[in-house]
Amino acid sequence: MIIHISNNATEAQIEELIGAIQSLGLRVHTSVGDVRTVLGLIGDLSQVDVNTLKKYQIVDGVYRISAPYKKANRQFHEKDSIIDVDGVKIGGSNFMMCAGPCSVENEEDTVELAKLLKEAGANTLRGGAFKPRTSPYSFQGLGIEGLRILNIAKEETGLPIVSELMGTEHIDIFVDMVDCIQVGARNMQNYDLLKALGQTNKPILLKRGMSATYEEWLMSAEYIMAGGNNNVIFCERGIRTFETATRNTLDIQAVPVIQKESHLPIVVDPSHAAGVRYLIPSMAKAAVMSGANGMQIEVHQNPEKAWSDGQQCLTPAEFKELMITINMLLEIEGKTIIQK
Amino acid sequence: MIIHISNNATEAQIEELIGAIQSLGLRVHTSVGDVRTVLGLIGDLSQVDVNTLKKYQIVDGVYRISAPYKKANRQFHEKDSIIDVDGVKIGGSNFMMCAGPCSVENEEDTVELAKLLKEAGANTLRGGAFKPRTSPYSFQGLGIEGLRILNIAKEETGLPIVSELMGTEHIDIFVDMVDCIQVGARNMQNYDLLKALGQTNKPILLKRGMSATYEEWLMSAEYIMAGGNNNVIFCERGIRTFETATRNTLDIQAVPVIQKESHLPIVVDPSHAAGVRYLIPSMAKAAVMSGANGMQIEVHQNPEKAWSDGQQCLTPAEFKELMITINMLLEIEGKTIIQK
Amino acid sequence: MIIHISNNATEAQIEELIGAIQSLGLRVHTSVGDVRTVLGLIGDLSQVDVNTLKKYQIVDGVYRISAPYKKANRQFHEKDSIIDVDGVKIGGSNFMMCAGPCSVENEEDTVELAKLLKEAGANTLRGGAFKPRTSPYSFQGLGIEGLRILNIAKEETGLPIVSELMGTEHIDIFVDMVDCIQVGARNMQNYDLLKALGQTNKPILLKRGMSATYEEWLMSAEYIMAGGNNNVIFCERGIRTFETATRNTLDIQAVPVIQKESHLPIVVDPSHAAGVRYLIPSMAKAAVMSGANGMQIEVHQNPEKAWSDGQQCLTPAEFKELMITINMLLEIEGKTIIQK
Amino acid sequence: MIIHISNNATEAQIEELIGAIQSLGLRVHTSVGDVRTVLGLIGDLSQVDVNTLKKYQIVDGVYRISAPYKKANRQFHEKDSIIDVDGVKIGGSNFMMCAGPCSVENEEDTVELAKLLKEAGANTLRGGAFKPRTSPYSFQGLGIEGLRILNIAKEETGLPIVSELMGTEHIDIFVDMVDCIQVGARNMQNYDLLKALGQTNKPILLKRGMSATYEEWLMSAEYIMAGGNNNVIFCERGIRTFETATRNTLDIQAVPVIQKESHLPIVVDPSHAAGVRYLIPSMAKAAVMSGANGMQIEVHQNPEKAWSDGQQCLTPAEFKELMITINMLLEIEGKTIIQK
Repeated sequence: MIIHISNNATEAQIEELIGAIQSLGLRVHTSVGDVRTVLGLIGDLSQVDVNTLKKYQIVDGVYRISAPYKKANRQFHEKDSIIDVDGVKIGGSNFMMCAGPCSVENEEDTVELAKLLKEAGANTLRGGAFKPRTSPYSFQGLGIEGLRILNIAKEETGLPIVSELMGTEHIDIFVDMVDCIQVGARNMQNYDLLKALGQTNKPILLKRGMSATYEEWLMSAEYIMAGGNNNVIFCERGIRTFETATRNTLDIQAVPVIQKESHLPIVVDPSHAAGVRYLIPSMAKAAVMSGANGMQIEVHQNPEKAWSDGQQCLTPAEFKELMITINMLLEIEGKTIIQK
Repeated sequence: MIIHISNNATEAQIEELIGAIQSLGLRVHTSVGDVRTVLGLIGDLSQVDVNTLKKYQIVDGVYRISAPYKKANRQFHEKDSIIDVDGVKIGGSNFMMCAGPCSVENEEDTVELAKLLKEAGANTLRGGAFKPRTSPYSFQGLGIEGLRILNIAKEETGLPIVSELMGTEHIDIFVDMVDCIQVGARNMQNYDLLKALGQTNKPILLKRGMSATYEEWLMSAEYIMAGGNNNVIFCERGIRTFETATRNTLDIQAVPVIQKESHLPIVVDPSHAAGVRYLIPSMAKAAVMSGANGMQIEVHQNPEKAWSDGQQCLTPAEFKELMITINMLLEIEGKTIIQK
Repeated sequence: MIIHISNNATEAQIEELIGAIQSLGLRVHTSVGDVRTVLGLIGDLSQVDVNTLKKYQIVDGVYRISAPYKKANRQFHEKDSIIDVDGVKIGGSNFMMCAGPCSVENEEDTVELAKLLKEAGANTLRGGAFKPRTSPYSFQGLGIEGLRILNIAKEETGLPIVSELMGTEHIDIFVDMVDCIQVGARNMQNYDLLKALGQTNKPILLKRGMSATYEEWLMSAEYIMAGGNNNVIFCERGIRTFETATRNTLDIQAVPVIQKESHLPIVVDPSHAAGVRYLIPSMAKAAVMSGANGMQIEVHQNPEKAWSDGQQCLTPAEFKELMITINMLLEIEGKTIIQK
Repeated sequence: MIIHISNNATEAQIEELIGAIQSLGLRVHTSVGDVRTVLGLIGDLSQVDVNTLKKYQIVDGVYRISAPYKKANRQFHEKDSIIDVDGVKIGGSNFMMCAGPCSVENEEDTVELAKLLKEAGANTLRGGAFKPRTSPYSFQGLGIEGLRILNIAKEETGLPIVSELMGTEHIDIFVDMVDCIQVGARNMQNYDLLKALGQTNKPILLKRGMSATYEEWLMSAEYIMAGGNNNVIFCERGIRTFETATRNTLDIQAVPVIQKESHLPIVVDPSHAAGVRYLIPSMAKAAVMSGANGMQIEVHQNPEKAWSDGQQCLTPAEFKELMITINMLLEIEGKTIIQK
């Protein structure tokens, strides 16, 4: 970390600042230029808040050089992390092909769909039971009944379950009934939830907040890992920009950036990014070639009858067709989808 | 709500769609143009999700004409709502002047500061006890001890307390110990929390999410109100944009827009928007003239020693000086700060 | 176009508005709901400005249903346009592989590089002669001398030249010396320039403005086409978002959206989007699978010596290696790079 | 400027980089930490491009400490610049109250409006003659005839004229016929235009680009000043964000930030920021209290008949009423509107 001192700082003020920094257990390297004094901070800086330093009047700027995340940081963990989702490996060359309905609606359709998805090549099953909806008047999900149905589908197909948890209240039920707990975009900085998940050892699918920077996203993973749970999978699902013709803007560059910064896997959700059906196949293919470690796609037997987000669902037939190209691309990429 | 039908839709498909809409309890007005068929939906549309209609293949576009919020909507409640924060009225011409430290640090300083703030003209006291921090390694707040200290400051000054709740776990304690519960920007769409707050009758200070649209913000208020709690105060605290020289971009237009759309009060937090001390006074004055119903400002006796966000705190002397101009502006605006 | 009338509009006001609309040569279909009156406009709406209607006090909202662009619109031109860049076809299944230095620096290096690029598979040569730089103190390009050098490289390799024009002043020289005139992101809405280019019959590579919506981008193409020049190629080069870890955010969804809306080709520039070398290969591959009609990549023999943008250049060896995978992907996509 | 060297850089690589920096006429201060080597650059850095340094493989980060603008920088020119617009002083405590129609439509209305505006307190007259329109099919302005009409209005009222120039082609006419040349948001980085304006000595009203950072905006002023013309006035007119309920988001924080960074005046255009009439008065008042050096407002006798942007025009009566409060606020701010 580098601190740029204001021109009109007195020596006494600089001394005081240096003392304050040293009291944080850091060493300070002072460099006096023609017009500027610059302080270099040496030591474990991951726990130092930039704002702790900005509050001093004589500080003109603070530049963080080392990343504020430690456990998620590839610098301290060179090899790709492989996350085990109830027997399905995710990360490195192991591709996560996760598909399923936006919301679980009923047992019959869910089981039938899970079979079709497995057959087409999926290795994990997504399904919403608790749904974050913009309106309090919209369908809020089947709740625990939804999780029960997903478990029946799992019994029939072996596909591990990915489902979204919305608050700490249901955490025990999710640990029991779900194989990979999804944290939604709106809860990416719900720190109470992240801390609670850090106390479990379940794989966590951490969606990117709608306007979260890479660093904030990595810090949210760090929250979970700081509690002792290292099983975090990032999921890029589009960010909010000025463009409104699509639901969100898929930030495909997130894939190689996160993979450079972190050893954790990152998957892409083209359904929520695009928000409209016709964009999904091309974006799914682009995601594979961006180097993603997996994908999450919404599929529904009859999108026009879906209880939520039908406008962005593929049909099982469309999914199956898409899988043909995806498998060709995965071969080029040297990745494989391994089913349990 | 207006639905724009694709050119190549068949009559049968249109019939089916109309049937589906009617089954939601709505009536449909069909208008056939030269090239386009347009459906107008009539009835209670606040509970109809736009995506429910977009999922049909023959639907090219859906245009919402009436707002999706009802209880927060000024259309159904013309007069300004006045919120009672333990005896201090907020809304209409009653201005909320809320000040205090970012984090509560100790009893002595907090009580002293509260006295200075009251003397300078504040009518409510803010103070963080549970702190949402980007890093798990940063100071997370004093917790319940912080709330205890705020209550001592209240005993000494009479200033009602505003403090942030981060999860449903502590809701009972907050109902007991806090006069106005703040929902932070990162939790604006934490729907489990909003629903739980809807079950209380405490005033809620609902901060705008970093990238929340006005409509989403209004819908979050609607979540609280749908549960029966109408005591919601909006707080604009800056949005995330491409500009990084300031912490956030203060969206001052939010004030008149929200006041047009809703009967609920809206206050402005220039401290979090600017993120840097020198911007606060001018932005606070601008906020008054934007028509805001109040303001929340961070003040600390010694910003350079503050445990969090010192870089954006005013000193008590700066606050006192600012209040002189603010009082002149409030007179022009016909508003008053009434202390309990 | 649909107009939503305010509740408290009088019949006389509505009559007046209808008269005004009819005087634009349009017909009006009136639909009276329970609480709302809605007007549907019928006729050629591409020339009607939404704001022309919003200015009426009784207008609550205006919803455009048909696109405001006509010549760029796929609706009126179903087949993919094929643009001829001095003998190299671009569009449909004809892929544009355009590579070259950010800035032209000298004859020897430029000619050598052009040969390497052609050998590796490029079919067009990019090179900056007039450079838009944020600072007036930065290198501004070699100017006409740069164009002369590009022409020598073309003589040696046959590669048609793509280069950026910054103002109307040099338009005649560019028509003479360049095969495809690039309009930079900062000039996407320089309407005087667009109009002047509409008077030529040169292919135009129209980069997307840093914060331009798809519709604005299409309208800029429309400006060129309205003048009679239909040879427009779109180029997605990243948009400005809140994320600052990358130079821009590559909006890969732009590819299928523009291809749906327009018959014109769209290519991707991963170099300017990423702004950093290590992201280019994965983004280039993702671009192919997004369905793009081509690509523009910066290559330099010695990026560390480049006069501009060296941080985002590939070396010729890296480019050559990348081309191996790209050719495999193009085969999957059914596209080909045809060299002259 | 500070350069952060990669951990795995060899001494030889570092030596080479230092040599390259020294060849730019700079000195280098090397500081070796536990894990990191950091270089501090000393000398005139305003002409050094950050990317020139980022292109080296061993460079992990470059942090600019001194601003890249010189002539616009308050550091080298402490006192507020006062710009003379044909006798009307702008800057410091001299407030620019600029009003007028979006587009000039005819002589009679323009002259009548100018008289009303002067009477109400305006000291400069705005009016569009060349109009940048998103659609080639929209009204493009009266052109030179518009400038002629503005000059008649000036003869009658003495109000200096502010009007937008769209390209270099008409620069001589503007120098002749206009007192303050406006550069529109879309042309803020039209560098050919900025350079040409630098060769004149006319006051330039430089609007902020829709997604321009403060630094980019200051650099555009630097382009004009580098040519020798120091008469630049900044105009904040709203930026593009994710919020679509308003035309743009007025970034009111720009006012104190620009005033801290630069000695040049900054004015606010609430009309284009809001894009809707009812927001203008509150935003205009907020702008005054933000410390702005002036304002530009669109006024039209009959907004419903305006040829462009009628939806965001005040009537002369509304403007007159607004001026009453604005004058009260200017007194508080210690500023005055001086008419010629």
